[in-house]
Amino acid sequence: MSEIDIETETSTGWLADDALAMVRANVPIVYVDAVPVRVDSLGNVIEVGMLLRVAADGTISRMVVTGRVLFNERVREALMRHCEKDLGPLAFPRVPANPTPFTVVEYFPDPDRSGFYDPRHHAVSLAYVVPVEGECEPTQEALDLRWFSPEEAVGQEVRESMTSGHDRLIRLALAHVGKLP
Amino acid sequence: MSEIDIETETSTGWLADDALAMVRANVPIVYVDAVPVRVDSLGNVIEVGMLLRVAADGTISRMVVTGRVLFNERVREALMRHCEKDLGPLAFPRVPANPTPFTVVEYFPDPDRSGFYDPRHHAVSLAYVVPVEGECEPTQEALDLRWFSPEEAVGQEVRESMTSGHDRLIRLALAHVGKLP
Amino acid sequence: MSEIDIETETSTGWLADDALAMVRANVPIVYVDAVPVRVDSLGNVIEVGMLLRVAADGTISRMVVTGRVLFNERVREALMRHCEKDLGPLAFPRVPANPTPFTVVEYFPDPDRSGFYDPRHHAVSLAYVVPVEGECEPTQEALDLRWFSPEEAVGQEVRESMTSGHDRLIRLALAHVGKLP
Amino acid sequence: MSEIDIETETSTGWLADDALAMVRANVPIVYVDAVPVRVDSLGNVIEVGMLLRVAADGTISRMVVTGRVLFNERVREALMRHCEKDLGPLAFPRVPANPTPFTVVEYFPDPDRSGFYDPRHHAVSLAYVVPVEGECEPTQEALDLRWFSPEEAVGQEVRESMTSGHDRLIRLALAHVGKLP
Repeated sequence: MSEIDIETETSTGWLADDALAMVRANVPIVYVDAVPVRVDSLGNVIEVGMLLRVAADGTISRMVVTGRVLFNERVREALMRHCEKDLGPLAFPRVPANPTPFTVVEYFPDPDRSGFYDPRHHAVSLAYVVPVEGECEPTQEALDLRWFSPEEAVGQEVRESMTSGHDRLIRLALAHVGKLP
Repeated sequence: MSEIDIETETSTGWLADDALAMVRANVPIVYVDAVPVRVDSLGNVIEVGMLLRVAADGTISRMVVTGRVLFNERVREALMRHCEKDLGPLAFPRVPANPTPFTVVEYFPDPDRSGFYDPRHHAVSLAYVVPVEGECEPTQEALDLRWFSPEEAVGQEVRESMTSGHDRLIRLALAHVGKLP
Repeated sequence: MSEIDIETETSTGWLADDALAMVRANVPIVYVDAVPVRVDSLGNVIEVGMLLRVAADGTISRMVVTGRVLFNERVREALMRHCEKDLGPLAFPRVPANPTPFTVVEYFPDPDRSGFYDPRHHAVSLAYVVPVEGECEPTQEALDLRWFSPEEAVGQEVRESMTSGHDRLIRLALAHVGKLP
Repeated sequence: MSEIDIETETSTGWLADDALAMVRANVPIVYVDAVPVRVDSLGNVIEVGMLLRVAADGTISRMVVTGRVLFNERVREALMRHCEKDLGPLAFPRVPANPTPFTVVEYFPDPDRSGFYDPRHHAVSLAYVVPVEGECEPTQEALDLRWFSPEEAVGQEVRESMTSGHDRLIRLALAHVGKLP
């Protein structure tokens, strides 16, 4: 990996494959997780959105919006970028005014380390509940996006369609907004 | 106070003057405080709204939206009702999905008890930051509503126009959203 | 109810029965709920404590520490007072430095209003997770105190021994500390 | 940098200088900040601890405890490790049960990006208020540790002895615990 590579990468925030592999093997990566929700006029969460896509572990799973924070990028910008990428340009995500995540999810290559698993790396993910108001149409790698009531979201069927601890993340998000059944 | 009075009052949540006086002398009252804010598209707070009105201590002061939670009323409903009453019907307040207040403000008749003062009673107030998107026009008892940048909101001029600890509440709200200068 | 009664009551924070009945019929009451926990040296919650006692609905149930905030009492003082009353003088509860509750529990006489039920009144309760370090011996009205692992605390057996939404409160507390299974 | 280097580094979490330089130039680094506090028996913060040390920008400044999260390390473990390293083995830090930071501090090489500055890298730091109960004796690189009342901690003298936004971090911490003057 040359000096020139690094400089080029720095300016965009993207990394060449070998550089990313080196980073992943050596330091925790900063991530954001966004749990998309629909709220009523009083702010009550009435539905939780979940993507169907190929997860980090290779399974086709229900998942929340998730992705890396790039070099020189603000956490809010990363959150907005990943929401728009995964939910489409008309989703109108409302990133909360409070920068504090509702929980910090620690993904490890060892599935037993924290219960949150990612075979690719150790990621420290700031997790937010993000109300969306517009039309969502999953873009890029997602196969579909479906909305679930809080009861459905903690039910057996959804749990079994999630891997790597994502079902637990949904329960933590619902608890945070006072809607865990 | 007769049985009949109590029943009438219960059904509306409102209290006759003597009943309210008796309650205020004996138990803490449940309140909500709402700090209205304008946010940009990434959720950053860019302005804080403050009403100009006659405060509980009789002064004309800059204040946030504040008021009592009624019997049988949900906290969210009280928050929405007071925002609409003070900011007008077109303010479109966005009560957060998370029911946890950013701080709990304890108002006492003794100004030294907590630094938050209300000569009328002991109130325990759940304080929220509430983004508003629409047009605000102060209704009822407010003389005007003005928007301040975070720098202005913690500046000497605004501090001197606030009493009873409300200037401190503004600083706590700005800290919560990461915008305290 | 005479003037003299009210003044006497005010000074202690306690209310005569008829005054309390009048208050309960007319305004929400300020409460605190404390979920006692054991933590390891890194701050991880490893056990949740639950009392066995006669609940507000008359059943013998597993419950958290709960009680009223008195007139002129700080929320922290109420929290400490109820913990000491229910867990004994050697429990050494560590009330968190952050005054924000992990959730706000709204108890209503109507069991369907929020899912949290109290036949006696409408209470707005600030709920905290409180690590205890010392020896607990339940005093006063509690029959016993037992410690449960997070897995046990969300299990079917414990759920069935709780009423009025207290089982849900335990799950919200565990989610807050990142230990909801 | 060879394959062997990477593997050796991974097992300890430490990086060779050139590897660290490469990481720093390309991705945000996961950090923790700990604001040490003294609390009274009710959990009120009465003093804030600040180290005097050489800051990232080369100045001798008042600072909080701060440091990197290593590969395969839990956030709690990093928090405890840095507290023990900076405050000594007898400080007995009490890492909160709640894994959510009170704020997320984004340090950038560009001092204007967020107001939090680190010339070495882009760091995303999870910031916690950590009560300490034992004897602190600053170890390693710190010149001393001094305790400040909330009033002193936001005063002009302390502000001027801090750089890179650390004075603001102290104010955010005090606001979080309800003690910002």
